[in-house]
Amino acid sequence: LPQDARVVVAVSGGADSTALLLALDELNKAGRLALALKVAHLDHGLRGEAGEHDARFVAELAAGLGYEATTGHASVGQRAVRTRDNLEQAARRERYEFLGAVGRAWAAHAVVVAHTLDDQAETLLLALLRGSGSRGLGAMRERRAFDESGDGLFLVRPLLDWARRAETAEYCAARGVSVRADEMNEDEEFARVRVRRQLLPLLETFNPRAVETLARTARLIGAEADALERLAAKLLDAAKQLDESDASELAPPPLSVAVLREADGAVLNYALRGWIKEGRGNLRRIEAAHVAAVAALLLGVRGGRVAELPGGARVERRRGLLLFHAADNVRQGARGHG
Amino acid sequence: LPQDARVVVAVSGGADSTALLLALDELNKAGRLALALKVAHLDHGLRGEAGEHDARFVAELAAGLGYEATTGHASVGQRAVRTRDNLEQAARRERYEFLGAVGRAWAAHAVVVAHTLDDQAETLLLALLRGSGSRGLGAMRERRAFDESGDGLFLVRPLLDWARRAETAEYCAARGVSVRADEMNEDEEFARVRVRRQLLPLLETFNPRAVETLARTARLIGAEADALERLAAKLLDAAKQLDESDASELAPPPLSVAVLREADGAVLNYALRGWIKEGRGNLRRIEAAHVAAVAALLLGVRGGRVAELPGGARVERRRGLLLFHAADNVRQGARGHG
Repeated sequence: LPQDARVVVAVSGGADSTALLLALDELNKAGRLALALKVAHLDHGLRGEAGEHDARFVAELAAGLGYEATTGHASVGQRAVRTRDNLEQAARRERYEFLGAVGRAWAAHAVVVAHTLDDQAETLLLALLRGSGSRGLGAMRERRAFDESGDGLFLVRPLLDWARRAETAEYCAARGVSVRADEMNEDEEFARVRVRRQLLPLLETFNPRAVETLARTARLIGAEADALERLAAKLLDAAKQLDESDASELAPPPLSVAVLREADGAVLNYALRGWIKEGRGNLRRIEAAHVAAVAALLLGVRGGRVAELPGGARVERRRGLLLFHAADNVRQGARGHG
Repeated sequence: LPQDARVVVAVSGGADSTALLLALDELNKAGRLALALKVAHLDHGLRGEAGEHDARFVAELAAGLGYEATTGHASVGQRAVRTRDNLEQAARRERYEFLGAVGRAWAAHAVVVAHTLDDQAETLLLALLRGSGSRGLGAMRERRAFDESGDGLFLVRPLLDWARRAETAEYCAARGVSVRADEMNEDEEFARVRVRRQLLPLLETFNPRAVETLARTARLIGAEADALERLAAKLLDAAKQLDESDASELAPPPLSVAVLREADGAVLNYALRGWIKEGRGNLRRIEAAHVAAVAALLLGVRGGRVAELPGGARVERRRGLLLFHAADNVRQGARGHG
């Protein structure tokens, strides 16, 4: 980021994000940075009056430091019911939509968020318990594009690779700022809270530096997942066949069975996931078994003919190609043949 | 394996390995398999009289089923002192040396061992707590070459991908066999025992199928590590330069800086580790920071000149090449220049 970048700081009022704001402000005032800062706070509508207190705390903190603050209001509970996400997922989606909107409205270079080493380690453990693949285990990056829009807005996590959560609380205390407590961070109904309060302390009895070790492992697995994704993208490019037959209308383009059969298994796995995502728009409900069923179409002289995907899409092997049929096409096909 | 393969079964007398022997015997006697079985048992010399009881139990079990048993005797405690391995490592090395010797003396196709899904999950967790790279996280395989000798002896783990430890105990009980208990399996001084008794039960409160989930993740990461290793081997082949200068006597051969600089970071990491292993014979004490220091030699027009490795070896960048100097060469070089 340019030293004088326009930066939106996401501040909940908890220790992590308050420390982030105080630290950026300290660096600004010491002349080490010259960031134009705007503070953004979302009231998720989950904590009633406490949520209003949080918003007021953040607004006053920002004003005291000399920055403008924007507060958004959401009804995350309703969103969760509507989208069938759990409360944490719904809150995260709502928060990132809000932060992206604030960043874009202000033509910011970046949105900065206060994830710490502890968050990185917790995210790895949660992904491990869910059975995520290496993409999910690879966890968060210090800096990435905010989303896939390609508009140049970045998401930056300045604390991610070095700061412990306890250090953020110590820093706030040293600066004489009493932060807000979020009782959702105490509620052991949430898996993340139990990871923090039960699992990590147990892991630290094995390795006092468990948090640092897990965070480093997450970075390593992430780098390897990146490598496999790049190799998979090359494989997809090589395998994509734009032929002149009835398959030409299909999106994504058909893939050459011969090219895919030469590929390494792990790279093939990534490539097929990428191709399925192109076809379906997302990978929701796609499990390892579905990808394995598509890969199995490549086996043998003829192989199986069709692999079904959740939601109605299917992949067909025909004349040396894998063809992706979206759910709509399947229905049309069924009418045509029925 | 051929249906009538010659197979050495490693039996400690505990539930897992006793169940493995009983199951192979049952399949043999039901005509489903026709394996020639030999039972191998190592007394590690750690349990005194109890160890002798274990050996007698295994010999009698084998004789009762109609198989020959071989018992070895070791002094693992002394080995651990001598090699500075911990007791578990020393016991494992001694055991595998014994099993390999028995397998070769008998011209066996394979040595089979009784690792279960639980062992796979525990191994992943221990590797995670140690901070292993993906090769270590990738854990055990159901079937692999016994060692690097290339003599065709396999190590096979028939229970690894499906059997739970509790199921092996149930099966022994159902067959009316009282297995031996190893108090080392109860001793919470050993990290593996605490993983089994404290960590896995906690993880199962998050995900009742934590063991299966972790074992699947270990397989997945292992497959990705395999893919990266294969790609790294190709990169090393492309980068190896046998030049006519004073570097020609070096083993391993020098690597082309230009070729390595084109490589993907994760693949490069694997390739450099492989090359360092060629040069040193092993990767003991080689940490990520050492590999990163070698990779850093590739940066810039000139880059740093030398990266030191633990034990005295070093890697030098000179005239577009990376040169590996073993610890002895370094000393000779010092004499020559001094």
